[in-house]
Amino acid sequence: MKLVIACLVVVLNSAHTYKLTWDSERHLLDETIRRPYSLTDDPDYMKQREKMIADEDAMRLGGRLVLQPEEQAVNKILMAEKTKMMDDSRINRTPYIPSLSFYQVKPKVENTTLLKLIRQMPKGGALHVHDLSGASIDWLIQNATYRDNIYMCVDPDSYILFKAFKTPPPNPDCPWKSVKEERAAASSPQAFDALLKKNLTMLEVDPVEAYPNNDKAWIRFQKFFMQVYYLIYYVPVFRDYYRRTLEEFSADNVQYLELRAQLWGLYDLEGKVYDSEFGLNLLLNVTEEFKKVNPNFIGAKVIMCGIRNSNVSVIAENVKNAVALKQLYPDFLAGYDLVSDEVWYNPLIYYLDALLYPSRMDPPYDLPYFFHAGETDWQGTEVDKNLVDAILLNTTRIGHGFALSKHPNLAKVVRTRQIGVEVNPISNQLLRLVTDLRNHPMNGLLAQDYPIVISSDDPSVWESYPLSHDFYMAFMAMSSEDADLTFLKQLAINSIRYSAMSKSERKAATAKWEQSWSTFIKTYLSQRP
Amino acid sequence: MKLVIACLVVVLNSAHTYKLTWDSERHLLDETIRRPYSLTDDPDYMKQREKMIADEDAMRLGGRLVLQPEEQAVNKILMAEKTKMMDDSRINRTPYIPSLSFYQVKPKVENTTLLKLIRQMPKGGALHVHDLSGASIDWLIQNATYRDNIYMCVDPDSYILFKAFKTPPPNPDCPWKSVKEERAAASSPQAFDALLKKNLTMLEVDPVEAYPNNDKAWIRFQKFFMQVYYLIYYVPVFRDYYRRTLEEFSADNVQYLELRAQLWGLYDLEGKVYDSEFGLNLLLNVTEEFKKVNPNFIGAKVIMCGIRNSNVSVIAENVKNAVALKQLYPDFLAGYDLVSDEVWYNPLIYYLDALLYPSRMDPPYDLPYFFHAGETDWQGTEVDKNLVDAILLNTTRIGHGFALSKHPNLAKVVRTRQIGVEVNPISNQLLRLVTDLRNHPMNGLLAQDYPIVISSDDPSVWESYPLSHDFYMAFMAMSSEDADLTFLKQLAINSIRYSAMSKSERKAATAKWEQSWSTFIKTYLSQRP
Repeated sequence: MKLVIACLVVVLNSAHTYKLTWDSERHLLDETIRRPYSLTDDPDYMKQREKMIADEDAMRLGGRLVLQPEEQAVNKILMAEKTKMMDDSRINRTPYIPSLSFYQVKPKVENTTLLKLIRQMPKGGALHVHDLSGASIDWLIQNATYRDNIYMCVDPDSYILFKAFKTPPPNPDCPWKSVKEERAAASSPQAFDALLKKNLTMLEVDPVEAYPNNDKAWIRFQKFFMQVYYLIYYVPVFRDYYRRTLEEFSADNVQYLELRAQLWGLYDLEGKVYDSEFGLNLLLNVTEEFKKVNPNFIGAKVIMCGIRNSNVSVIAENVKNAVALKQLYPDFLAGYDLVSDEVWYNPLIYYLDALLYPSRMDPPYDLPYFFHAGETDWQGTEVDKNLVDAILLNTTRIGHGFALSKHPNLAKVVRTRQIGVEVNPISNQLLRLVTDLRNHPMNGLLAQDYPIVISSDDPSVWESYPLSHDFYMAFMAMSSEDADLTFLKQLAINSIRYSAMSKSERKAATAKWEQSWSTFIKTYLSQRP
Repeated sequence: MKLVIACLVVVLNSAHTYKLTWDSERHLLDETIRRPYSLTDDPDYMKQREKMIADEDAMRLGGRLVLQPEEQAVNKILMAEKTKMMDDSRINRTPYIPSLSFYQVKPKVENTTLLKLIRQMPKGGALHVHDLSGASIDWLIQNATYRDNIYMCVDPDSYILFKAFKTPPPNPDCPWKSVKEERAAASSPQAFDALLKKNLTMLEVDPVEAYPNNDKAWIRFQKFFMQVYYLIYYVPVFRDYYRRTLEEFSADNVQYLELRAQLWGLYDLEGKVYDSEFGLNLLLNVTEEFKKVNPNFIGAKVIMCGIRNSNVSVIAENVKNAVALKQLYPDFLAGYDLVSDEVWYNPLIYYLDALLYPSRMDPPYDLPYFFHAGETDWQGTEVDKNLVDAILLNTTRIGHGFALSKHPNLAKVVRTRQIGVEVNPISNQLLRLVTDLRNHPMNGLLAQDYPIVISSDDPSVWESYPLSHDFYMAFMAMSSEDADLTFLKQLAINSIRYSAMSKSERKAATAKWEQSWSTFIKTYLSQRP
């Protein structure tokens, strides 16, 4: 749809009659906007102005990186599209794609040269991704639900839930049926799979309309996890789902992953439920296998997660367990976090004794924390104060930190201690914390080069690329028109710098990423006509 | 409509069967959220935590004010409602009124004890209000359009425009008809007036739906000014409209006003068009008369405004004119600004030579500027760079400054030089720069006690109280749950501190406002049962 804009202006001429006229002079005005510098003869003013703008540009994330000639060539392509898209929309008053809901603009974004460029770009690591939402829904439907022993039921709210059984038990509220048989009885497998997709996807309806606020979005969001939890936590599916996650991230040119996972609770057909070590080991083995066949892939680590609606005693056990596992798997287990809706469930302070446990051990044990904190608009509430507790509990990174810009003192600590903040633009938008990403509260901190990384949280739920769409949104909606390839490059560098990798791991990872980056630059240029 | 919320949680019990259950434990959890402090036996931690929270609370706007016992009593009433409203909505997942579009929640807000309290509160000055939108649309309809010689026409877009004539000229695109005759021919004056209201109001339809972005909102917004411009700029109406503006602001317990006005262009029935000095004099006389009969009213000043779609030569003349007028009326004319859509029209840099004129005079003349700047989401564009030019042009205050938090260096200058930033919450929301005011980019700067004042921009267009609704929104959506009466009191203090008043005027104004404040506190308490 072409947007036809009519702007009427009042023209007051000398005779003071008035007429309404179309803004026919607009093009002329644009011309002058494009070259305002010719309008003054004050070189001192212009010098001061340029300095002020340049000083600020240097302060932003990536603002001090210097591009090599080949990078400059790629930058030129990148910036031509960025500037054109911003200027076209601004000057012609047409909708600005990256300002709209991701749900609405996804197909349009996917057609851009810029997204394709970002997809090819080695983006380093994704540091904030959950185990139940790393690989695509389509894979779940086309692969996991085609397996033997997978059952489905339709709950009283008409959502389909999945689970694996040898023989399903009676379940009156939600009677189990074999997915295989249901599919066979359907008009076609395609139609059946489309029905599954429609039932699983959060984007089946316009999420801006359907989930008008953060609470309503979270209710649907959590429902998704209930739908797929027992499908994915079935051991053989879990193994393949995680492998698929690595494959999809790798195909999106992400070289490294830190996965948040519950770990305990994997189960098999014999009714056996496995503990956290089993889960961790499984992830470790898949990671090692994957690295072997994908030498460019840097690796993965796991952040073990408790759920913040658990009883204190459960989390206390969980933390002890994390300490034990960290001692056994110091390289693979990065640390511990608490997940799920911060607003609806318990704040960190509720679990304080459990979370202080490692520091109270004799000798104190340093269990790295990666707390979700400040994923909220509720300033000054117990939810918002999760940021305070995360910092007091010496968190290594902060998940989301959406509320951080409202906390000048905490923000200062975050900067001084170089606590990485994992920003997930599309997640924040679809969960309705912010509407237009140009208004994301992290934009001010990105403009000051805070220790920020961009991640994707739950790409399967947004049906986005594993990381590229979030990079795209950060680049097009969360940075200045002047922010260029250095911004994206710095995000990749930050993802290694603020990762849980050891110093030596980071060094090796940086070398690997630099190699990939240099290949990307050369390849990209050689592909261009 | 009561919102019924169902939250399902997965309960994993020891036997690893699963059931879906209603979150019946929620109340229990809430209890624990309300008293988390009992959960730890680590007094050091709690002390650090309290200090961290208190330190940050002290950093916010008003955070260092100390309330007297009577103020504390009012504060208690105020905070009971704030906390209840925030906690109820957060804990029960019901919509949070102050987070929604002002259009949708206006009637609900008006019913609150809190708004009534804020309305009674002496709020000091409104420093950002335009001359065509200070007094209510209802007054325009019920008073201005009932006068002799007022004509209306319906333009090709079905908008009604007004103007005064002795005898209207032919105007084929929009033929003039006598409002009196049209009203007499209508089924009833009430029905006719309702039609006028429906045609004038921006809130006739849900503005979130109707104006999905900043551009579309601006188009309707500017149309409003075209509709009423010639009605209000008719000398007798202008005089009364401004008097009515003072009355409405005064009734809303605003003691001081800085009005942005074009000044030139007032006209009479004889076809005479008046110059800026005439306009300024008229405003001055009305102000003086008003002050005489309202001794509690502090006063008003005028900021003369050019329109940023004018030719450079027009603005050059305008600035010279402003210099001359400032010399003639140093106390009443505060200074100069450029108005209208920053995105659509020319940036400050376009008028640089004109704006540098006073500083290039021999000797240099210091014409105070009050530039609109940064009322945009277009980071890093020429629009956004208005902030740079406003600062380089030594602006006294900044109108809106919505983009300021994206400019760390400029923000620092604003703080150091104590450049007052005039934030207009409802305006920013209805013109679609921000959806949920809890996400307003100024919230981070309010949390750091930047030199901010709250104003209302165009209260007649939003059909809001002159200032109370904006104070309400700032208090309920743009500050921490901990921010109390000190926040509102500081906003009032700031409105005097950052006003264009001279030192001695400010001293007298402060004394007057303090008197009103103390009366308010006593009266409010005495009214309570």
